[in-house]
Amino acid sequence: MSAEGRSVSILGVTGSIGQSTMLVIEELRAQGVDIPVQAVCAGRNVDALADACRRMRPRFAALADETLLEEARAALAGLDIEVAAGASALVEAAARPADWVMSAIVGAAGLAPTMAAVRRGALVALANKECLVCAGPLMLAAAAASGARLLPVDSEHNAIFQVLTHPQRVDKLTLTASGGPFRTSSQEAMAAAKPEQACAHPNWSMGAKISVDSATLMNKGLELIEAAYLFDKPEHQVDVLIHPQSIVHSLVHYQDGSVLAQLSAPDMRTPIAYALAWPDRAGISSPRLDLATIANLSFETPDEDRFPALRLAREAFRAGPSRVAALNAANEVAVADFLAGRIGFLDIARITGETIAHLEGAEAGLIAKTPSSFDEVAAVDQAARHAARRIAVSLAAA
Amino acid sequence: MSAEGRSVSILGVTGSIGQSTMLVIEELRAQGVDIPVQAVCAGRNVDALADACRRMRPRFAALADETLLEEARAALAGLDIEVAAGASALVEAAARPADWVMSAIVGAAGLAPTMAAVRRGALVALANKECLVCAGPLMLAAAAASGARLLPVDSEHNAIFQVLTHPQRVDKLTLTASGGPFRTSSQEAMAAAKPEQACAHPNWSMGAKISVDSATLMNKGLELIEAAYLFDKPEHQVDVLIHPQSIVHSLVHYQDGSVLAQLSAPDMRTPIAYALAWPDRAGISSPRLDLATIANLSFETPDEDRFPALRLAREAFRAGPSRVAALNAANEVAVADFLAGRIGFLDIARITGETIAHLEGAEAGLIAKTPSSFDEVAAVDQAARHAARRIAVSLAAA
Repeated sequence: MSAEGRSVSILGVTGSIGQSTMLVIEELRAQGVDIPVQAVCAGRNVDALADACRRMRPRFAALADETLLEEARAALAGLDIEVAAGASALVEAAARPADWVMSAIVGAAGLAPTMAAVRRGALVALANKECLVCAGPLMLAAAAASGARLLPVDSEHNAIFQVLTHPQRVDKLTLTASGGPFRTSSQEAMAAAKPEQACAHPNWSMGAKISVDSATLMNKGLELIEAAYLFDKPEHQVDVLIHPQSIVHSLVHYQDGSVLAQLSAPDMRTPIAYALAWPDRAGISSPRLDLATIANLSFETPDEDRFPALRLAREAFRAGPSRVAALNAANEVAVADFLAGRIGFLDIARITGETIAHLEGAEAGLIAKTPSSFDEVAAVDQAARHAARRIAVSLAAA
Repeated sequence: MSAEGRSVSILGVTGSIGQSTMLVIEELRAQGVDIPVQAVCAGRNVDALADACRRMRPRFAALADETLLEEARAALAGLDIEVAAGASALVEAAARPADWVMSAIVGAAGLAPTMAAVRRGALVALANKECLVCAGPLMLAAAAASGARLLPVDSEHNAIFQVLTHPQRVDKLTLTASGGPFRTSSQEAMAAAKPEQACAHPNWSMGAKISVDSATLMNKGLELIEAAYLFDKPEHQVDVLIHPQSIVHSLVHYQDGSVLAQLSAPDMRTPIAYALAWPDRAGISSPRLDLATIANLSFETPDEDRFPALRLAREAFRAGPSRVAALNAANEVAVADFLAGRIGFLDIARITGETIAHLEGAEAGLIAKTPSSFDEVAAVDQAARHAARRIAVSLAAA
């Protein structure tokens, strides 16, 4: 298989995707597949980084938190691994000459390392959302220039990638969405929803931020934007379909009437293994799908009145990359306020929408521009966070 | 697209698949795609053949029924088309140098013409079931020798063909089946079923023979055998799943946990267009799938007690090609008897099973041999028909 001899680096090795990536690598190694590991990196969990190093035996290990460098060195003593810390160490981990790089650092911290891997033309398995949401055009331009290939790992985008056999013959893409915990809730129930209700995702166990994003459907809105960037389609060719069982991960509709779909049991090892072995396929022991036991797959159109995040995402994508970065930043502020109990659930989309409307007036120049650097993205991000906080405060006071 | 300039012949142009093939060609021609037609042929419907000739403008037209040659010549006068009749004319139609041949002659009459197209290395769009069921190994060996490519048109096999991206990494194939009109019927209701009930297929409008085969699930049993031949898998790697909505046409399960599926509205133009444009894809106006409107897809394991045809088909495939040919012949006899009101619905599978058991004793040499020619296939076919008729008569008399 194509993973044979493929050297890899894992950025964000201690997170959920990083852990699943190690499981896939270990399983393939047990099959006799040679997968040398160049570099791994983590944020500040020294113990988990040391565990990863003992299992993966990389040449280089990096920690984001510089204050933990000595602790990390001590934990990795005797393993013959070069250890470094700080933001530049993460970038160095990505720059090391691995054929394949898993980009799974959560949040904006993943931008610079991922860009380093893209710039040197690697195969980049993309599990970080911010790379495309905040810096889609920059990332895609860099990949086009270097010949890097972006291999989507998110289950929806990976599904599309698996069945995108004829990119020039696509009618539309359909991203499926579980619908989240409030799929069948009334507007009133959503207005009164508490953080613990919003975090009770029906099919996947995830962090609080992404759970709330699933509840508002902003997660799907951001995925819609990612899909439009990644597969080079206008937003009106990217549909969202509610599919509560989360078995059909996404679909590609072709101009001959065929619709191709990827299905699986919900286990991230499957998309990770696909990205790792691409363009071949690996054999791994992730759970097998049994449709007769599942018995029913259901589908419904999302309600954009109760879930305005989808509309906001479409509008932002149409308006350009700065609007998308502002959407993402404002949503982050609003979700944090919701999780802290300062605002209601429906206020999340309201604050996000009002933030963009405000910036379109007050920061028209900034928001109309297509960012040509991460610094310009960061300027939009800061302006949006500032405006969102102000709007949230006045809302909480009202 | 790849259909551009592709010359085609249509064997069985007046049947349902032939008509849909013409619609696809006409639609692509209207888009400016050049699709010259070499030859068309039909059984005995002169008017429909003449209509096809006026629309397709082939160089050569053939009719199976020799007695209608003069009538056909008169009907096609002035069109500058060479006309011939008889079994050898059908073979000549297939032998004409078209790049792509639609094999849609129903029944055993399709064997020799399809083989002629396969032997000269054409792209052969396969809509005739008997080619693989009766002569699978012969057809596949001829294709391997000539470099012919078999492009399955049956919706289930076409679905698998569309998503068989990694043939060496397949866990199993799943053929979906509507379950037919007796999916939820009791054994007693099935025992008492009349031909008109058996012919009431829930999703497709088809001929009486194939409708009864759908009701017994023998149609799926024969498709299982076709799939095993076509995709070179043992029968235990080919599953059957009841899916009453007939939207998911089949699925391929991979060793990494991914399951790829093709879905569409039930319209044969979609698989025909796929075969015609392969390895590209065409754009045609077949109906678009709307999953939100369909709302529910359901799946269940077939009940092999009520539908023993599936078990018979698996056993026949395991036992070898002669057993498969005997299965098909015995089933044809039994279905005809059922349609004529001479036997009950459950007797169809019973006669088929008893015929094979009888041949295994009385014709052990014949049935154990792998046929090396169509004549040897015909000998098995005749022995099976003879035995099935005898068994049916004794059953009807009992």
